[in-house]
Amino acid sequence: MTLMKTNRRLVLARRPDSLPDASTFRRDDGAIPEPREGEFLVRNVFLPVDPGMRPVLSDVRIGADEFEPLALGALVGYLTVGQVVQSRDPAFAPGDWVTDILFWQDYAVTTALTARKFDPQELSPTTWLGILGVPGLSAWTGLITLAAPQPKETLVVTSAAGAVGSLAGQIGRNLGCRVVGVAGGAAKCRFVKDELGFDEVIDYRSVTDIGAAVRHACPQGVDILFDNVGNAMVDAMLPVMRRGGRITLCGQIADYHLPPAARPGIKNTNRFITHRLSMRGLFVYDHAAQFPQALGQMTQWMREKKLILSETIVPGFDQLPAAFARLFTGETMGRTIVRIDGD
Amino acid sequence: MTLMKTNRRLVLARRPDSLPDASTFRRDDGAIPEPREGEFLVRNVFLPVDPGMRPVLSDVRIGADEFEPLALGALVGYLTVGQVVQSRDPAFAPGDWVTDILFWQDYAVTTALTARKFDPQELSPTTWLGILGVPGLSAWTGLITLAAPQPKETLVVTSAAGAVGSLAGQIGRNLGCRVVGVAGGAAKCRFVKDELGFDEVIDYRSVTDIGAAVRHACPQGVDILFDNVGNAMVDAMLPVMRRGGRITLCGQIADYHLPPAARPGIKNTNRFITHRLSMRGLFVYDHAAQFPQALGQMTQWMREKKLILSETIVPGFDQLPAAFARLFTGETMGRTIVRIDGD
Repeated sequence: MTLMKTNRRLVLARRPDSLPDASTFRRDDGAIPEPREGEFLVRNVFLPVDPGMRPVLSDVRIGADEFEPLALGALVGYLTVGQVVQSRDPAFAPGDWVTDILFWQDYAVTTALTARKFDPQELSPTTWLGILGVPGLSAWTGLITLAAPQPKETLVVTSAAGAVGSLAGQIGRNLGCRVVGVAGGAAKCRFVKDELGFDEVIDYRSVTDIGAAVRHACPQGVDILFDNVGNAMVDAMLPVMRRGGRITLCGQIADYHLPPAARPGIKNTNRFITHRLSMRGLFVYDHAAQFPQALGQMTQWMREKKLILSETIVPGFDQLPAAFARLFTGETMGRTIVRIDGD
Repeated sequence: MTLMKTNRRLVLARRPDSLPDASTFRRDDGAIPEPREGEFLVRNVFLPVDPGMRPVLSDVRIGADEFEPLALGALVGYLTVGQVVQSRDPAFAPGDWVTDILFWQDYAVTTALTARKFDPQELSPTTWLGILGVPGLSAWTGLITLAAPQPKETLVVTSAAGAVGSLAGQIGRNLGCRVVGVAGGAAKCRFVKDELGFDEVIDYRSVTDIGAAVRHACPQGVDILFDNVGNAMVDAMLPVMRRGGRITLCGQIADYHLPPAARPGIKNTNRFITHRLSMRGLFVYDHAAQFPQALGQMTQWMREKKLILSETIVPGFDQLPAAFARLFTGETMGRTIVRIDGD
């Protein structure tokens, strides 16, 4: 393969005050790196945009030992899928497909330590950024490891048309739960019910009282809340939680852009005591020991057509900032992935 | 023993708008009941006042399947200690001491099914309303069952001079934790540090930023928060919680008197995700299977003088309403028990 002349790179230009926009990132192109002995050079092909990147773009440390925010000028992005183009490791040959943490750039040098080779004939390359990537692993561990769903329990999933939410709901359904999704807009709701097979879906844009709508959809109450939205959603759902209910906090897409003091608060916490609730935050990499089991089960479900993920492939490296921004305006469904090798 | 002529009883007269006061309860005396075959009559001697009774005095159901509030006119109170005065069960003789759920009244008929006989020579009768009663069992299960403390972990206990808080802190200390208490006022703080042996104590009345004060007292962060206060306290502590931290919600004395919409909210929930926190509500009777173990361990600690509870004994049945009201104004320390057999 012919290499391009420069390595396009996107870095953090300006911390977003609220929603990310065109000024958030800037190009900071560089030379294409050279692999040394034991290393190989990967050309990225697929770069996902992920709402989970939003918090580190801001500097909103609420505690002294909080995560460091991303530095201004630092390379952004995270997991990618690409192809080896030059190799000084005999186990990796040009043309091999790999997934690795190679960020939003064309080229990166890496090693067998972090790169995972896969067969593109077996599963489509983007599967490693979706069902078998962070969204799938977050859905699986956030639901199964943290909330231990039992057959016939009622599971409510917010951002149900999103990458993680759509998978969490399907996993719950596969395990025998009754699954109710919350999504915004008729198109997403149709998708959640008709394509993903959720039992019910609530269009939060069409109701004035989301708590009452969930109560109506779940007359027996809610055993598990898998939340991707934030405090206001959790607070509205608390009065509907059943005794012994579990809440997984997976993401807070509605709150990321607000400074902590401006975020809505969870007030209905007396429900924790009266109904013996528990709430846990998910940090997916804590559960790496369970990834093999999760990947095996999700691969099997994919083969049986019991686990699908809506994907939008956007062509063009320069589309990355706009594709990322659209995650926060409710326009996207499932996983958005930017394909950069056709530019 | 000579019976009194009437059975004094206190019932709910008026739901408190905010703090309970003299108008909350009224006397509704009745006849002294007669035991039938297999039953016995108990004369109550010690009646505790407990902040846990506050929620059911209001009608603030936040969900459709919420606890029923206490009916207007219903007998109030809960666990008591008393002596058998008439018996038609050969296993219980007049003079025997028992603890049972017999409410705020002089006399009640009960059976061996719920009454627990104890030897007053072995442990003082009020022990069954304190260390070996609901406060002790709440402290033990809320800390050990829900939060699994490990030696050298840092435990923060709020309402540290209260019945449950003072016990939770001592239990944590006995298990090898570093224990920091939060209490209001110099006298309580001295008691918590000097008498109860907490490692540190914070007077929340003397600091403007409770979160900063806890950070200062816990430079390594907090592994376990045992909260008896409510949402504002939990929110202030969240930024100080360490990775993998556990929060037990045991009581919410600052929030009980506010309608849910007026309560402070917990905003800093992103800490759950970044630091993999978990939060659980305690309902002590869920953990009855562990009561024998808890009672055994706490009895042993009492014998070794490693578990003490400050008790205030107030004489006079008619003092019950005022003693209850004082729980919510920060005036009390440890357990308040009203003694009614000297009237």
